[in-house]
Amino acid sequence: MIKVTLLVLLVLVTVSSTYGKYIPKSGKRIPQTLSRGWGDQLIWAQTYEEALYWSRSRNKPLMAIFHLEDCPHSQALKKVISEDNEIQKILDEDFIILNLVYETTDKHLSPDGQYVPRIIFVDPSMTVRADINGRYSNRMYAYEPSDLKLLMTNMKKAKKLLKSEL
Amino acid sequence: MIKVTLLVLLVLVTVSSTYGKYIPKSGKRIPQTLSRGWGDQLIWAQTYEEALYWSRSRNKPLMAIFHLEDCPHSQALKKVISEDNEIQKILDEDFIILNLVYETTDKHLSPDGQYVPRIIFVDPSMTVRADINGRYSNRMYAYEPSDLKLLMTNMKKAKKLLKSEL
Repeated sequence: MIKVTLLVLLVLVTVSSTYGKYIPKSGKRIPQTLSRGWGDQLIWAQTYEEALYWSRSRNKPLMAIFHLEDCPHSQALKKVISEDNEIQKILDEDFIILNLVYETTDKHLSPDGQYVPRIIFVDPSMTVRADINGRYSNRMYAYEPSDLKLLMTNMKKAKKLLKSEL
Repeated sequence: MIKVTLLVLLVLVTVSSTYGKYIPKSGKRIPQTLSRGWGDQLIWAQTYEEALYWSRSRNKPLMAIFHLEDCPHSQALKKVISEDNEIQKILDEDFIILNLVYETTDKHLSPDGQYVPRIIFVDPSMTVRADINGRYSNRMYAYEPSDLKLLMTNMKKAKKLLKSEL
């Protein structure tokens, strides 16, 4: 009896939530998120222009993640970043964040090439922090899942704004 | 008994889905969507660069919607567009779509200013179709909810690609 009730409930909920709405031929899709799995609770800028504007107006550094959804290195890094509550908290409170699956036209965001995953910090003064890099000399802005501590150190570096260093 | 079972189930589901995950101080948030309410079932480009690339490579026109989440005119237009299954279907199948709450650096996307809501069509040849406009001479690319038929006509115009007209 409980099973039947639950089933009827489920069917009713399913029907009422999709009734009359557009469904693609290929079947219902899960709505795309701006986080793309890097932190569903965080507030992501949609574009680099938006991120720069937020960074300047809120005086917070920008952390830009370049990645690809079907790249296993990107996926591995995404998993550890999205599951690390300390990083998520700092990103939420102290950073403007942007994740892009497509390169921008701004060459400053690819100081040593357009590989993924790549993490670039930008100061609120709109200066790309090319001095804040990872441990790989051939791909200076790449991070592996084991580099999470280094990433955290770099985030703390980025929080010391250029202006306040002068 | 059923009520108790359902309650226990609900509590279990709630606990298991949030256990250990980062929750902002201000409380749990609803993940941001790329659709921002303009059509959750559609596949949206994140940035203008991405949209242009898709448009060229798939030979489909781009429809770019500029809007603001707290603008009542944007909200009204969003409601009618997201609820019109015919428009949703055409957008899904025949267009590359992008909705932006922040202006790009490309002046071609604001032929007569940066107001919202504003709908700009771009041909796969990367030509902004300034000739496809709405009914208001002071804001040529603005549409009101009552202009849905005109929007549909304009979408059909945009589907006739510039190249094939030559």
